[in-house]
Amino acid sequence: MSVKESLLLPVSDPVISSGHKITVVGIGQVGMACAFSILTQNVSNDVALVDCMTEKLQGELLDLQHGSCFMKNAQIQASTDYAVTAGSRVCVVTAGARQREGESRLDLVQRNVDILKFIIPQLLQYSPNTILLIVSNPVDILTYVAWKISGLPKHRVIGSGTNLDSARFRFLMSQRLGVASTSCHGWIIGEHGDSSVPVWSGVNIAGVNLRDINPNIGTEDDSEKWSDVHREVVDSAYEIIKLKGYTSWAIGLSVAALTSSILKNSRKIHAVSVNVQGRHGITEDVYLSLPAIIGTDGVSEIVNQTLTNEERARLHKSAGIMNEVQKNIVI
Amino acid sequence: MSVKESLLLPVSDPVISSGHKITVVGIGQVGMACAFSILTQNVSNDVALVDCMTEKLQGELLDLQHGSCFMKNAQIQASTDYAVTAGSRVCVVTAGARQREGESRLDLVQRNVDILKFIIPQLLQYSPNTILLIVSNPVDILTYVAWKISGLPKHRVIGSGTNLDSARFRFLMSQRLGVASTSCHGWIIGEHGDSSVPVWSGVNIAGVNLRDINPNIGTEDDSEKWSDVHREVVDSAYEIIKLKGYTSWAIGLSVAALTSSILKNSRKIHAVSVNVQGRHGITEDVYLSLPAIIGTDGVSEIVNQTLTNEERARLHKSAGIMNEVQKNIVI
Amino acid sequence: MSVKESLLLPVSDPVISSGHKITVVGIGQVGMACAFSILTQNVSNDVALVDCMTEKLQGELLDLQHGSCFMKNAQIQASTDYAVTAGSRVCVVTAGARQREGESRLDLVQRNVDILKFIIPQLLQYSPNTILLIVSNPVDILTYVAWKISGLPKHRVIGSGTNLDSARFRFLMSQRLGVASTSCHGWIIGEHGDSSVPVWSGVNIAGVNLRDINPNIGTEDDSEKWSDVHREVVDSAYEIIKLKGYTSWAIGLSVAALTSSILKNSRKIHAVSVNVQGRHGITEDVYLSLPAIIGTDGVSEIVNQTLTNEERARLHKSAGIMNEVQKNIVI
Amino acid sequence: MSVKESLLLPVSDPVISSGHKITVVGIGQVGMACAFSILTQNVSNDVALVDCMTEKLQGELLDLQHGSCFMKNAQIQASTDYAVTAGSRVCVVTAGARQREGESRLDLVQRNVDILKFIIPQLLQYSPNTILLIVSNPVDILTYVAWKISGLPKHRVIGSGTNLDSARFRFLMSQRLGVASTSCHGWIIGEHGDSSVPVWSGVNIAGVNLRDINPNIGTEDDSEKWSDVHREVVDSAYEIIKLKGYTSWAIGLSVAALTSSILKNSRKIHAVSVNVQGRHGITEDVYLSLPAIIGTDGVSEIVNQTLTNEERARLHKSAGIMNEVQKNIVI
Repeated sequence: MSVKESLLLPVSDPVISSGHKITVVGIGQVGMACAFSILTQNVSNDVALVDCMTEKLQGELLDLQHGSCFMKNAQIQASTDYAVTAGSRVCVVTAGARQREGESRLDLVQRNVDILKFIIPQLLQYSPNTILLIVSNPVDILTYVAWKISGLPKHRVIGSGTNLDSARFRFLMSQRLGVASTSCHGWIIGEHGDSSVPVWSGVNIAGVNLRDINPNIGTEDDSEKWSDVHREVVDSAYEIIKLKGYTSWAIGLSVAALTSSILKNSRKIHAVSVNVQGRHGITEDVYLSLPAIIGTDGVSEIVNQTLTNEERARLHKSAGIMNEVQKNIVI
Repeated sequence: MSVKESLLLPVSDPVISSGHKITVVGIGQVGMACAFSILTQNVSNDVALVDCMTEKLQGELLDLQHGSCFMKNAQIQASTDYAVTAGSRVCVVTAGARQREGESRLDLVQRNVDILKFIIPQLLQYSPNTILLIVSNPVDILTYVAWKISGLPKHRVIGSGTNLDSARFRFLMSQRLGVASTSCHGWIIGEHGDSSVPVWSGVNIAGVNLRDINPNIGTEDDSEKWSDVHREVVDSAYEIIKLKGYTSWAIGLSVAALTSSILKNSRKIHAVSVNVQGRHGITEDVYLSLPAIIGTDGVSEIVNQTLTNEERARLHKSAGIMNEVQKNIVI
Repeated sequence: MSVKESLLLPVSDPVISSGHKITVVGIGQVGMACAFSILTQNVSNDVALVDCMTEKLQGELLDLQHGSCFMKNAQIQASTDYAVTAGSRVCVVTAGARQREGESRLDLVQRNVDILKFIIPQLLQYSPNTILLIVSNPVDILTYVAWKISGLPKHRVIGSGTNLDSARFRFLMSQRLGVASTSCHGWIIGEHGDSSVPVWSGVNIAGVNLRDINPNIGTEDDSEKWSDVHREVVDSAYEIIKLKGYTSWAIGLSVAALTSSILKNSRKIHAVSVNVQGRHGITEDVYLSLPAIIGTDGVSEIVNQTLTNEERARLHKSAGIMNEVQKNIVI
Repeated sequence: MSVKESLLLPVSDPVISSGHKITVVGIGQVGMACAFSILTQNVSNDVALVDCMTEKLQGELLDLQHGSCFMKNAQIQASTDYAVTAGSRVCVVTAGARQREGESRLDLVQRNVDILKFIIPQLLQYSPNTILLIVSNPVDILTYVAWKISGLPKHRVIGSGTNLDSARFRFLMSQRLGVASTSCHGWIIGEHGDSSVPVWSGVNIAGVNLRDINPNIGTEDDSEKWSDVHREVVDSAYEIIKLKGYTSWAIGLSVAALTSSILKNSRKIHAVSVNVQGRHGITEDVYLSLPAIIGTDGVSEIVNQTLTNEERARLHKSAGIMNEVQKNIVI
């Protein structure tokens, strides 16, 4: 009789499913930062990794598993076979070619569309009730593409979008003012990237709109140059890629926050990429980030922010750009 | 148009279920400590309270809800109507008359059996796939009773048992040795209460059995009187009830640990009250605590500890006592 | 040789101080909820309790200690002797007669002043660099009194104030709108209690001021009666005391959040009771709640909210009331 | 007047020190996994990074700072100038050439000694009361070297040692038995690496020594080949380096656990590299891993495990190897 047979007397068959499984597709720096953030921040202790790089996949699996003792007995699985993802509540898609130094997010697009056409159907086969959370860039385009491929209702396909841009904005604001970033409030909407829109009208500290103190905030006439804060947000990814070769930690944490809101059904508001047709007068069938309520079933409501004419115009322009790109995509 | 209608544009119907709901029946000091521990230690942010005391129930509900901001948007419900418990993954039963100063746990029994006959069927009606976790005393008897009433398989009806006694033992051991309680290892099994059995053969620090250092440990011949540690464990509840009127915090934390292992499917080993018929030569159909693996579906295995003849004899005696009490119960 | 001597070979003398000790004075329902929240939410694992009720103190001590295994090896001490508080980073004062059903907070005052005259000097004797966080009611008056008795600079004496009222407001707002309370933003300032002031101009969701959608919000002309939300906040304590006899959980969590901001030096903004002389045109030397930045050394800045004339007037009225009460106090 | 001046009215000078600062020296994969684990597992929200690679340092800094919103307002600093480390409670040293595929840990040694001679004096200049936690390989040798260079008492210089090897052992044991890794108990001592020693006599589940069930466990006569588990532990680093190029996550989590025990003064037992002269009959002045109690001031006691003659012999052999290497080092 083995040690196990002598030691452990069966009462019932062990169950594999935890009810809060998360799959991460793609184990590059972004995917691993997502997985590690989800595990260490206690969003889920049940994570599956999928990628086509067999060796690296096995290496990442072992490295995470060896930390199981320190992570509330995390259960990590990894495989090139999507069967490993079965029963996921959320599937985080980070697969795709990485943005290169100086490359715009839009340049990446068709390469990554083809990858999604391979990934999405397999994810849905094993987790038909999952939420799809797209992280790969250009995220707004690829979220639209994932939605089209999946055939899922709009609320179950979300892009990580400007949740990260908004976090960057809040951090930079916190540095200017010497206030905790979680007490700095500001929203970046629209495209995750070059054409993102800062909603200056809503930037506030303890309910005090900064525009009420500095009416020119965000404009060219502002002697404090607050618009530099938004410019730094836009430049962030390029800057970090130049400095360290890729971005990882902040996007990982941003994704952990989004998956947490889904698993906890928290109904928190995050700026995420959603289908914006009909919102703020947008006519195109495109995805852009707007503040939205996130819960168990994905997006339940979009917040109807009061935008200035200029903010609306910039959003419309982004929608137009997205639409142009989408026309050239073969789904 | 209301503020809500202007502000929030619907995308999909909000979902109520989080997938990790826990019900606590009984909102006395024990029940509330369980609920508060579950919420503050991030075991679940979805808790339902049930009791028949309408006013106190509403007061506890409001008091917890007002802390929602500080508890990851916890969603708390409370009602005298068991419909509020629908879809619970675990139902924690703390209802029952409280142990009075000097009263033995066994004295409480029939009063509490009748309460269970009212509670259990209603819990199962709304959560047919739930795990029942019985906390009310005498916990071993009442877990057996709950199992009988429920008709559930053995692995889905668990008593909080000596998980708390073992924690008390480890704390007292930590005070003697100046070592963190989580690095002190020792197991109390058997009855939660007067006849509990310390398994001295397994008491260890970093894998060093204390019995190898002090062969008389736990016996009358031990000059260091380690048996006092067990005696203090047995006296703990009586002592605390005498001092503050009830026990609450430690049992609340113990229950939070058990529910965490269930929700996370952690497969950790806890000393909990399980059906022990056929274990260690016990012939009676009774519940007593043994170390067991806890996961999503309750108990999957019982650890077959190597017991001394004396330890077995004490366990058999407890089984006999339980059986005698059970004979006199009307289920 | 004892087990300990055989087992553990000394390398250096064990150190007692963790560097993040918190003292809670008063072990009624509020004090214990504070201590338990601080422990379970990982604000500190080093807590000292002080009270004059010897037996209850010992009971609470044992009950918390028995949960040490489940609370990251929390180190809890308790004594009637203030020596136990030595080296505290924060001292939370909850001692004082409890608000009775229907009793106004101001009625409690002189009874509690005398208690503070006994407590404060002893706390400072053992922790001269501590931050004092006053929770006892009437909190604004007693924070002023504690400041006077202590001789400390203003920034190191804080009252828990309307941090709780603001949390209640945000929860009620979350119920109206179906949004997570942490995504609902609103500030209650002024007196913790009957004359508190809701700052409607700052109430917002994702940066959208609700007043921009409903210009009458908070006024009598508002068809949605949002002023009811503030009225419910004011009535909350009375209501809960009527229903369950006392308030505990939410104030405990509120205090845990404040102590966390101090220990983590987070520089988050909380509405806390601070010396408001010179702020918003207040001439009296009184304490009232305003949003303030909280860090290691207590309050570093007060947020200069843009108030309407009516809001200022109400704040001035509260300041006058405080001043009147203070005149009649013998410190 | 700037927005800041209008908005925030000063009460006291902001304080920079949190009292729980941790420095990580070296921002390779290991250093960053340490820093990120410390931040995300709430060990400290105050982390300083030091390295000589200016650009990568700035990139990692920005990437972490952008996640501040999601990490309890973490305060991260980074510089090539050690002034940034001032006032650290723990300094984690991960700098050094990385172990290459197939390279033994001992081969790295003199290269890394020279690096330590540059780093350690600067760390002590700015944090004279710090604990040094050495992670760079060969860790046992380099911890000895760091101790010599520092002139600190033994208890304040610790190597991460076999805390990771023990975690790997527990995970592999958990996979064999189907039990949570935190409920699997076993200790790997001695050298972190090829000559590490599994203490089979202490391997237990719920206090049941596996050797009592299988007397041949760990030996060549064991039909279940449990010695394979130890062999896999030894091969782990080589295997993962082969598969993904480096190890990171598990060592990061291991270091987070060690720093947590220091900051919390938890007095937990970890297998860490300590000065073993005089322990288990070792005569050499070398560092090897033994289970030790960790608290605020580093190591306070070493656990005197009961070793078999073979285990002692293997430990002595490791001590001899260390001593030989040390003779050839120029400190």
